[in-house]
Amino acid sequence: MKDKLVRSSKNLRILVSNDDGIQASGIFALVKELKKIGDVTVVAPERQQSAVGHAITMNYPIRVKPHFHNGKLFGYAVEGTPADCVKIAIRYILKSKPDIVVSGINHGTNTAISVIYSGTVSAATEATLMEVPSIALSLATFTTPDFRYAAKFSKTMVKQVLKHGLPQGTLLNVNIPPVEEQKIRGVKITRMGKSTWNDTFDARRDPANKEYFWLTGDLDVLDTDDNVDQIAVMNNFISVTPIHYDLTNYSMLDALEKWKVKK
Amino acid sequence: MKDKLVRSSKNLRILVSNDDGIQASGIFALVKELKKIGDVTVVAPERQQSAVGHAITMNYPIRVKPHFHNGKLFGYAVEGTPADCVKIAIRYILKSKPDIVVSGINHGTNTAISVIYSGTVSAATEATLMEVPSIALSLATFTTPDFRYAAKFSKTMVKQVLKHGLPQGTLLNVNIPPVEEQKIRGVKITRMGKSTWNDTFDARRDPANKEYFWLTGDLDVLDTDDNVDQIAVMNNFISVTPIHYDLTNYSMLDALEKWKVKK
Repeated sequence: MKDKLVRSSKNLRILVSNDDGIQASGIFALVKELKKIGDVTVVAPERQQSAVGHAITMNYPIRVKPHFHNGKLFGYAVEGTPADCVKIAIRYILKSKPDIVVSGINHGTNTAISVIYSGTVSAATEATLMEVPSIALSLATFTTPDFRYAAKFSKTMVKQVLKHGLPQGTLLNVNIPPVEEQKIRGVKITRMGKSTWNDTFDARRDPANKEYFWLTGDLDVLDTDDNVDQIAVMNNFISVTPIHYDLTNYSMLDALEKWKVKK
Repeated sequence: MKDKLVRSSKNLRILVSNDDGIQASGIFALVKELKKIGDVTVVAPERQQSAVGHAITMNYPIRVKPHFHNGKLFGYAVEGTPADCVKIAIRYILKSKPDIVVSGINHGTNTAISVIYSGTVSAATEATLMEVPSIALSLATFTTPDFRYAAKFSKTMVKQVLKHGLPQGTLLNVNIPPVEEQKIRGVKITRMGKSTWNDTFDARRDPANKEYFWLTGDLDVLDTDDNVDQIAVMNNFISVTPIHYDLTNYSMLDALEKWKVKK
């Protein structure tokens, strides 16, 4: 933790994290592009942390190590979750707030209900809780990824966010279709889709004949509207969804009052 | 997994989970009361899982063990998260949907931004994703808890939910003040409060002089309105908040269209 981050105070200060881990090719592609527009600090989980949801580490100590790539300091690897990374980056490593947090590039779609399981979104959420604008970026494929266009587009999104600002507590969840640049049809502003995770448990027996389970499953999209994240990205549009953390179902408040629940 | 759950088909079928673990006194108090109104199946994490957020276990096998209390089957202990427990309970242990899922009783407040970190709420969320109505119950204290009134009140909430139903994708997040029954001033229908988690990292050195961190912090409530979860419970009201999982910030959609982001 002694390494100094050389930084010009004029420059844009960008904090990068992810949930695929500091060695993932998605974060590497992202950092390479973002360095063209600002000073980048990378604080990311040491290991892959997908589907951790908005977990924070409270029962275990957290360790932070400098992480090198080709002999140069690439960033800091944290034994913890994406949310831990953003907390520790802002409170301890940077010791002040960056101008923006960019989380990703996730290898895999973060649309519809996947958003609530997503470590990528969770890092961005943690930033909004600390009043730093943030973007979560995902490449919508589970097969071999090519992050080049997504990384390039990250610069566009960063500039847009810095130009316009974001409402307090709101982040942008960006999903990029996994196709060549010329096949991308444009940018759609979307809402989070409705879907269910049609999960199954694969029951197996270990060598001692004890049963164990693997979780598997598919995402079933329940929306058909073009302006939904999952549908937009399936139609080769970049999906940009404003996400916030007020989970209140306001439309139910009046009905619930009428239940007249007594203590 | 060979144990049979004796169940009368006429009866109300209640699935109980939590995030404090199957040995926590909160789940024990809850089950004792709920057994008075229905057939209860307990599927809960083997170990304490607080602040896991909406994590699901995808990279490790999951094991399930019968858990006994005073020589009798109390439920099933899962090596996994609260969300895992509800998935595996419905898909594998019960093999069909229960009438309701009750998660808790959590030892500690789940209001404001804590909701997104909460394993208790996460188990209830997983139920709504599987189209089963659900309730998350928390006793709003971090000191020695007395779960008796909260457990009693759980029956009221279960009956209310079964009588009125819940909109698809919505759960009730219930926080109970940690005071004697006669001091509870009633039930307030609330919205999720705005707050920040004012966290700090306590930096220490291990015996080998390597640095490590513990996460600590306080919740700062930013609302003052009586109809906010955190404020209601501080004022000795039971707080009931309808929670859903559409995180779209609808109020920002129009503004975002005007950014006219190009690919």
